[in-house]
Parts: sequence; structure tokens; C-alpha cells
Amino acid sequence: MKVPYLLTPGPLTTSDGVKRAMLRDWGSRDPDFIDMNRDVRERLVALAGVGDTHVCVPIQGSGTFAIEATLATLVPRHGRLLVLVNGAYGRRMVEMCRVMGRPVESLEWREDQPVDPSQVDRRLTDESAITHVAVVHSETTSGILNPLDAIANVVAQHRRGLIVDAMSTFGALPLDGNRVSFDAVVASSNKCLEGVPGVGFALVRRDVIAASAGRSQCLSLDLFAQWQGFERNGQWRFTPPTHVIAALSRALDEHETEGGVAGLGVRYARNHEVLVDGMVEMGFRCLVARSLQAPIIVTFRMPGDPRFVFEDFYDRLSRRGFLTYPGKLTVADSFRVGCIGRLGEGEIRSALRAIRDVLDEIGVRDGAPAEVSAR
Amino acid sequence: MKVPYLLTPGPLTTSDGVKRAMLRDWGSRDPDFIDMNRDVRERLVALAGVGDTHVCVPIQGSGTFAIEATLATLVPRHGRLLVLVNGAYGRRMVEMCRVMGRPVESLEWREDQPVDPSQVDRRLTDESAITHVAVVHSETTSGILNPLDAIANVVAQHRRGLIVDAMSTFGALPLDGNRVSFDAVVASSNKCLEGVPGVGFALVRRDVIAASAGRSQCLSLDLFAQWQGFERNGQWRFTPPTHVIAALSRALDEHETEGGVAGLGVRYARNHEVLVDGMVEMGFRCLVARSLQAPIIVTFRMPGDPRFVFEDFYDRLSRRGFLTYPGKLTVADSFRVGCIGRLGEGEIRSALRAIRDVLDEIGVRDGAPAEVSAR
Repeated sequence: MKVPYLLTPGPLTTSDGVKRAMLRDWGSRDPDFIDMNRDVRERLVALAGVGDTHVCVPIQGSGTFAIEATLATLVPRHGRLLVLVNGAYGRRMVEMCRVMGRPVESLEWREDQPVDPSQVDRRLTDESAITHVAVVHSETTSGILNPLDAIANVVAQHRRGLIVDAMSTFGALPLDGNRVSFDAVVASSNKCLEGVPGVGFALVRRDVIAASAGRSQCLSLDLFAQWQGFERNGQWRFTPPTHVIAALSRALDEHETEGGVAGLGVRYARNHEVLVDGMVEMGFRCLVARSLQAPIIVTFRMPGDPRFVFEDFYDRLSRRGFLTYPGKLTVADSFRVGCIGRLGEGEIRSALRAIRDVLDEIGVRDGAPAEVSAR
Repeated sequence: MKVPYLLTPGPLTTSDGVKRAMLRDWGSRDPDFIDMNRDVRERLVALAGVGDTHVCVPIQGSGTFAIEATLATLVPRHGRLLVLVNGAYGRRMVEMCRVMGRPVESLEWREDQPVDPSQVDRRLTDESAITHVAVVHSETTSGILNPLDAIANVVAQHRRGLIVDAMSTFGALPLDGNRVSFDAVVASSNKCLEGVPGVGFALVRRDVIAASAGRSQCLSLDLFAQWQGFERNGQWRFTPPTHVIAALSRALDEHETEGGVAGLGVRYARNHEVLVDGMVEMGFRCLVARSLQAPIIVTFRMPGDPRFVFEDFYDRLSRRGFLTYPGKLTVADSFRVGCIGRLGEGEIRSALRAIRDVLDEIGVRDGAPAEVSAR
């Protein structure tokens, strides 16, 4: 059976080269492996457009682990975090702080609306106790892109620390650390970098991490201690996922070959355009206005035709070689289709043909949501 | 260049089949992947000789992450953990509790001495506030094997909960959950199961985990919430390391083919015997008495000949295709050689020949430590 393409928010389809990079076992304390890690860390810093002012601290686990380690280490125990929430990943940061007993508050927007920097400005003016602000660059919940540059300017004007969850944009959308001021940007191996899952990383201002000893209440997720380990001898404190890192190293090679952030951005933008055009042509409707969408993952409203049952649609499309993703919205019934990973316009067009086939098979004329088809 | 064999405590040399299992991308919420995870979790429970009384909760990251999640979730915030310490991994559990602010105390033994169950008995008699006891089955620091059955009996008599770090023994040494009573046994994919690193797991008594909601101060390392996620829909709460899990699934197939715990135990025991015999023949001396050693990793005292410099020895042996491991002892200068992973008597004999070659090359007559050669 053919292995399906993953039209999901990740894990994604990776290249053969990335997967084949896992065909070797590495000694985790061997000089060759230490060299590879130094190189990977340096290249990730460079991708954020920053230099020696920032350090890359990789950490085992999913992106969520890296986010939690960053919050636990950067926000002082008696600090206060303001989370800008317009989806599940913003809400998750609030929950993390509650679980770890760290003072937290949030500003919230609808899932189909971007964060409004002027409201952030007002809140920071009103509440001097807030030490840090956290925002998700692109909320995978809806696929919406938040205005990072404007938010970063507001936070910088108020001299608070900014923590950016760039999980689903890092490597594909420009992030110029010389222009956008941040304390930390957090991402993972298995999104736009097109590596495999198992490791996340934070790019942190050197003076910020140097001042953050003893804050984390979790030994494993202590970003300061993790950084100290790398500083000491270039090694991971605890067993690293060696094969995952080898795959990331190879993925970074391929990323560079494709033209870096700019090159990848062009491919994803084209994937996104072809996907949305094709879906709209079949009657599907996007949740988020096109101008607000990141070219990462698209949320479609659930079709109104009762013959369209997502689980059944998923199965039929899966058998045709494409995996989609359920919705995660609270505002509307929906499903999601990703346009990232090692795939291009050709695969997106094949996916669109397969979706048309499935609609025909189940007798659904078009993908219009209830409120549209009822008109 | 030939990829070296890893004579280390892990990550280890894995089979071609295990590595090739990573040549496929999986959708993390796809039914095929969900099925694979259910199967892996069931097989891990079975390997511990327990049935429906226990559940397997896998967690992303290194073994340390799984240990910390287990302590954070099983020991109540106002409970008290007694850690039995005779090496770095016992000490690390004490440190975890200190970092998370959980009441903890320890009983300590020399690194070349096993835990003494009678002292545990006395301490549990004296201190009723202790709710849980934690012990490392085989301390990788020295390679010593602790008397798990006797310790478990003592803890059970006192009706306290037992948490076992079986990181370096699980899958190779028998663990009969019907005879040895435990609240949790924690291990990882990349030791004796011969998978790749990136995931750990805890096998926990169902009634114990069911009663442990809201204890962890870390969202990512909340074993209860992780379990609830699997119970709800068979899925991981947060992005799983899909390729690592596929490799573990394959590793479990191969483990079964080799005859399970018994079959693997025979191979490792033979590796261990051949390794120690060969090293002793060259004058090296083990730290731990042979009868106390687990057939996992062996700590050798540093040779007394000043021409033997470990880093140089390491490099020369590495070029011959074998990676060894530095020591981690506080009681003596030492280095370590592992005998686990996808290798057998033939590879161990080749390693011994390579070691002899290196000794000849650097002009070291034998590996006798200072106190022996001075005699």
C-alpha cells in the first residue's frame, strides 16, 4: 500500500533524504555527534536572523515540551505572563502557567480574528506587574497569522519580554531578529523545517537565559540547565533523540538547498494558493479571511450536505493517499488541510482531484457549509 | 567510514530492521498509527509480567523525562519519597524532587555496593511519613544490580508504593509483576529493547494512576493527563515521535523473535561474560564484584599505566569501530564498556582484539589499575 501524504499540521511528509539520515546509530557523547549538534544549533540561530546575542537550546520531546520549558525558565516565579490567545495553543500556554503555579493572565480574541496590538498596548500600560508576553505566530487551530512585528514593537516599547511560539512558521515565514525584538522564539523539528518529530528548541537572548537559573520547577524542562550542559561540553544533559537530530541536520541541508526561508516560503505560498483556489472552486469555505491566513494550514468549514461525514471523508481520502486533519475550533465545526511538508503543487493538485473523487463517490455536490448552501 | 558499534549505556547499536522502520512518515492521529501505539503499549505491559492491573503510559523525551513524570504524578505533593541511592540515577531522582518541591529523603550506599533491603526495612519502620520508595534496578553509573525482589518485598510489607527505574534492565532481566509488587516501573525505548531514543514509558498500576489527577506541576510531564489522553481516543496528547515509535514497534517484534526476555538475557549474559573475561585477561579490573554486576554495562578501573589516557584510548578505539563510555563514578577513576544493543559474542571479541591493538599501539602492557600494578 502506498504511504499517504500528510496534509496535516505535523508530523509531516519528509523527504527520503531526511528519513535515510536515520539509518545510522550515533554515540550521544561522541565527538562526531557533538559536532553535528553544534552545527544544528548554529544554523537554527542563523535562521532567526540573529547572531551571537542569542543561543539555541534544543530540548527532547514535542514542541509543547519546548514551550513549557521556555515559560518555566524565562518567566520568574513571581513574574506575570500575559498570553495573547486566539486559539488552542495560546490557551495551552495559559494552562501551563496555571499547572506550574506561575501568575498568568490572558487577552482573548475569536479564533478567526488576529491578535490586536492596540489592546496589548493598553493592557501593558494598565498593568505594570506583567513581566512577559507570549503569542503564537500562526495559530494552528485556525491557521491564522498574528501580526508579530506590531506585537513585538508594542512589547518592546513597554520593555517587557516577548516569548513567541513560532512552531508552525519557523523556517517558512521570515523572522528577522534584528527588527523583531524577542526574548525567545520556540519551534520544533517537524514543522516547516521538514524534519521528523522528537525535538524542539528555543532561541533565547543570551543575557536573558544567563539570568534564569533556578526558576524551573522541573529538572527535565529546565532550559537554563539544558543550556549550561551545552555550554559546558557541547553535550545534551540527558539522552538525546540521536536519529531525530540526524534527520534535522539533513533537513536543514535541504532547507538551505531550497533557498532557505525565502525558497520554502515560495513553495508553501504556492501550495496554499492552489489548495484554497481548488477547495473554493468545489464550494468549500475557509474559516479565516484569505489575507489573514498563514500559508501553513487551512481550516475549512464543515460542508452542510448531511452526506458529508468527516470520518468517512477522511477514510476515503486516506485510501487515495492523503491524510487530512480534524478541526480544533470552538467557534465552528470544521476540518483542516495542511500545505506544508515535503510536497508541492503537483501533490496538492492530486489531493484536490482525490477530494473531488470522494465528493462524487459519497454524492456530495459541493463543499458549501450549511449557512452558505442554505442561502 | 564504518559506523562504530556503540559499547555504551545507550543510545545503542540497533538492527537494520529497526532503523529501516523509520523510513515511513505516519499521521499522528491516523487510525494506523493509533493501532500501532495500542499494540506497543500492550506488549510493554506484557513484558513486565502484568496484565490488566497495569497500564503503559508512554511519554516523549529521554528516560529521565519518564522518571520525572512518574515521580511528579505518583508521589502526592504532601507525600514523601525515600530514594535508595547508590549512583547518579538515584541521586538524580532526589534532585528532581528537590526541584519540584516534593518532600524527599534518601538512603545512600557506596557506588560499588548494592542497596541493602534491611536498612530500607528499618527506615520504613521508623518513618511513617514516607509514602513511596524509589530504586534503580541496575545503576548504570557502576553497572551494579540492586536486589529488586527483596526491596519490593520490604516495601510491600510496609504498604508503601514502589517506583522502579528499570531503564537499563527492562527487556533483558526478568521482571515478574505478579511476584514483584510495584506501583510503577519506568524504562525507555533505547536500552535493552534495542529501539532508538526519543520515548520513555511507565507501567503503572491502574488504581494508582487513576488516583493521581492534578498532582504534576508540569503539563507536559503529567502522566495522569497523558494516560487520560490514551484512554479517551488512543492518541498522544502532544505530537509523538512517530518514527521513534515505529522503530520501537519493530524492535519489539525482533525482541519477541529472539525469545523475549529470556532470549535476550542469554545473549547479553554471554556478551558480558566474554567481555569481562577478555578484559580481565588484559589486566583490567572491574569496579563491582562479578556476582553483583548486571549483564548490561561494566565499569573498569582506570589503568595505572600513565600512557593510558582515556580520551586517547577512546579515539583510537573509535577509529577501529567501537565507542566506549567515560566513567561517572565518584569513588574511583574509571571508564565503561556496554554489552547491550544489537551485538553479540562476535562483536565483543572483535572489540577485545581492537582494545588489545590499541594497548599495543600506545605501549601499555596491561590494563591493571594503579593499586594492582603497584603491588
